[in-house]
Amino acid sequence: MIRTFALIICLIIFTNLKAQTDEATIKKIYNTSLTNGKSYDWLNHLSNQIGSRLSGSLGAERAITYTKEELEKLGLDKVWLQPVMVPRWVRGAKEYAYIETIPGKTNTVNICALGGSVATPALGIKAKIVEVNNFEELATLGKETIEGKIVFYNRPMQADLISTFDAYGGCVNQRYKGAVEASKYGAVGIIVRSMNLRLDDLPHTGSMTYDDIPVEKRIPAAAISTKDAEVLSTMLELDKNIKLYFKQNCKQLADVQSYNVIGEITGSEFPNQYMVVGGHLDSWDLGDGSHDDGAGVVQSMEVLRLLKESGIKPKRSIRVVLFMNEENGLRGGNKYAEEAKQKNENHVFALESDAGGFTPRGFSFDCNDANFNQVLSWQQLFKPYLIHYFEKGGSGADVGPLKSEKNVLAGLRPDSQRYFDHHHASNDTFDAVNKRELELGAATMTALVYLFDKYGIK
Amino acid sequence: MIRTFALIICLIIFTNLKAQTDEATIKKIYNTSLTNGKSYDWLNHLSNQIGSRLSGSLGAERAITYTKEELEKLGLDKVWLQPVMVPRWVRGAKEYAYIETIPGKTNTVNICALGGSVATPALGIKAKIVEVNNFEELATLGKETIEGKIVFYNRPMQADLISTFDAYGGCVNQRYKGAVEASKYGAVGIIVRSMNLRLDDLPHTGSMTYDDIPVEKRIPAAAISTKDAEVLSTMLELDKNIKLYFKQNCKQLADVQSYNVIGEITGSEFPNQYMVVGGHLDSWDLGDGSHDDGAGVVQSMEVLRLLKESGIKPKRSIRVVLFMNEENGLRGGNKYAEEAKQKNENHVFALESDAGGFTPRGFSFDCNDANFNQVLSWQQLFKPYLIHYFEKGGSGADVGPLKSEKNVLAGLRPDSQRYFDHHHASNDTFDAVNKRELELGAATMTALVYLFDKYGIK
Repeated sequence: MIRTFALIICLIIFTNLKAQTDEATIKKIYNTSLTNGKSYDWLNHLSNQIGSRLSGSLGAERAITYTKEELEKLGLDKVWLQPVMVPRWVRGAKEYAYIETIPGKTNTVNICALGGSVATPALGIKAKIVEVNNFEELATLGKETIEGKIVFYNRPMQADLISTFDAYGGCVNQRYKGAVEASKYGAVGIIVRSMNLRLDDLPHTGSMTYDDIPVEKRIPAAAISTKDAEVLSTMLELDKNIKLYFKQNCKQLADVQSYNVIGEITGSEFPNQYMVVGGHLDSWDLGDGSHDDGAGVVQSMEVLRLLKESGIKPKRSIRVVLFMNEENGLRGGNKYAEEAKQKNENHVFALESDAGGFTPRGFSFDCNDANFNQVLSWQQLFKPYLIHYFEKGGSGADVGPLKSEKNVLAGLRPDSQRYFDHHHASNDTFDAVNKRELELGAATMTALVYLFDKYGIK
Repeated sequence: MIRTFALIICLIIFTNLKAQTDEATIKKIYNTSLTNGKSYDWLNHLSNQIGSRLSGSLGAERAITYTKEELEKLGLDKVWLQPVMVPRWVRGAKEYAYIETIPGKTNTVNICALGGSVATPALGIKAKIVEVNNFEELATLGKETIEGKIVFYNRPMQADLISTFDAYGGCVNQRYKGAVEASKYGAVGIIVRSMNLRLDDLPHTGSMTYDDIPVEKRIPAAAISTKDAEVLSTMLELDKNIKLYFKQNCKQLADVQSYNVIGEITGSEFPNQYMVVGGHLDSWDLGDGSHDDGAGVVQSMEVLRLLKESGIKPKRSIRVVLFMNEENGLRGGNKYAEEAKQKNENHVFALESDAGGFTPRGFSFDCNDANFNQVLSWQQLFKPYLIHYFEKGGSGADVGPLKSEKNVLAGLRPDSQRYFDHHHASNDTFDAVNKRELELGAATMTALVYLFDKYGIK
């Protein structure tokens, strides 16, 4: 009886000690990030000293050099560059567009070429416009209505969805596949309403595809600001015969050499089990890519720094991977997974931050039930930091290719309400990132990495 | 056996039906707020057509007229003004301050008078500075060090607290009581580090007290921007003999007549049970008071509109109360509670929104366990909207005086990370409010009001 009692007491003490250690460690991680963090300084440099980092650009090159040097300063066990060939698309001179109501009477609108689009002919394109909300409508109108015209995709993001990523998901096919679909019916160009829930004057770029359409048959594709999309739609309602003129000067050049930037703390017990944290180093060219994905880059770097600063010696090998070319090719993410497979590296865990530097709310997971239940058992540890969102769902584009049957992929889920105000637009800039929100995200990622490293993957 | 089984089935069906109805109603509330809301338009008018609304100012007067008119348009059962006398403090010409290292060599710093402060003499004050972090330090230094000098309170907000309101609570006594404490030791003025977690150039005003110090003995009090607080502190470390000059032109005038603005939907079953939603109509004078508390005002108005738009006929009487003078007197909140008591009105519930128009995270409650447990039983209904914070704690300054043993007081708790970047400063402006975040807050408040009206107070 007494023995049983003593055992229970011991168990209670032991359990409490263990719990307290995790609590104390996680508190230290958050405190360090908020009072002695490096993420905001790194982002300041990436955004304000380097700027936009489109794959193959000088900015991307400088970002590789800078982040490699900064990782080297952290005293990690290894830092290296992983070569990867990337596409190089350049915007050229700023785009120009106007609505022509009667010859000579024009109304300028704000557009930008979609990433990967061809240029217009040197003198631009002027044509009548057909507004549609989806591909079904396009098909119904058919060749007789579409041929020789510009297709204007104007389906707005759905405001009553709580996650703005869901709203984005419901619209983005217009941007990605719009040119391919419109080409089928002889359109001469497409204009897509910007993926933005606000009404403002900024066009938002983003990737698109031509599938296997031969280069000479590709039609130019541009995004129009949400305000100008409303203007254009209203003017079309008043007069179907108005025309849109647009000129863009972009170009797809030959692939160039680039790199993923990788740093590693080698595991003390299971060095052959790899845990990855990452974001993408490339960005679109209009802003400075502070939210997309400068934030994810510096948060991922900060995870390794916070582990060291908090005196945590991971059992497993923790890698930060700064992926190149997420935006228009995913070559970096694919390359990393490909080499990992070739080398038979066992990637047990990968966490991506690519949803903006806003207040973290939690994570989504792509994993089996055992691991997900383990995560749920940790929820209380995150409560003091107002981290409450733990759901199954996607992880991230760059870590996705690492998926195996047994491993855990995860994505940081920050508050999404403001994200698409800035996404792929000229206002994705440093001033839109709040220092504390960024730092809370880095700490939240570190806490999850710490727990998975300590308790392992099921 | 079969009867029991049938009863269980019925119970399950009934429970599900009930739950579905609540789910559908709440979904409708959120959808309406996000797709057909009025809060953002109202805030646009309050912020950009009226501007700052310090008690007794023309702005406050115009805000009363405007919100009363807008409430009248909603077809409520009653809309009225409740008279209340309020203090009237005016800033006068902009403040001016510099650090003097040697005579003639000066360095301008950004300050603003604290609300309620006296002016400096017409030619300003120039004196040596004593930097302290708290009142204990002040007492230790005593009269011999302090007399004839300016006391500089420089305790920063604690960055490792997750709730920035906790960090504010840990610092604000410097601002509120700093002049009283420094007066005890013969200081000629005080300068307080702005209540702001960021380093920037903006001084943040706010209320202060002189307790019972006679008018002629009151010393002027100002806030200094966080960046300039750092500069001043560094310069003091280099040379204790530098001086600070400051001049401010503010004035406390006689009390003036003002009003709380009140609208009511009279309850269909229990008209004598009152449920209040409110924010404060007054603001500080430096920005346009969009977050503090334009957001709370328009969200509270929107609660009544969303109830109507969603076809909800409340059983209890729902009042929106736009309180006057929260910032520098709380006269409106006290007046409302006083009259409620005189008229023996049974206020069963009151919800305040006065923590900014950011993404809502939940509520804090001041109520008994039975009511709190009822709230916890509703948590799942809020989950689709990422509302997760339900804790006991304070409610709000304006609804506080309504506290009784049985009733429920609550405060909306939005994400707090960015709040003190704007609080009481010239950048508390409309552009810092995100439309969706504001609308989500209004819907979240409405959902809580709907549930308490439907299920009653325990």
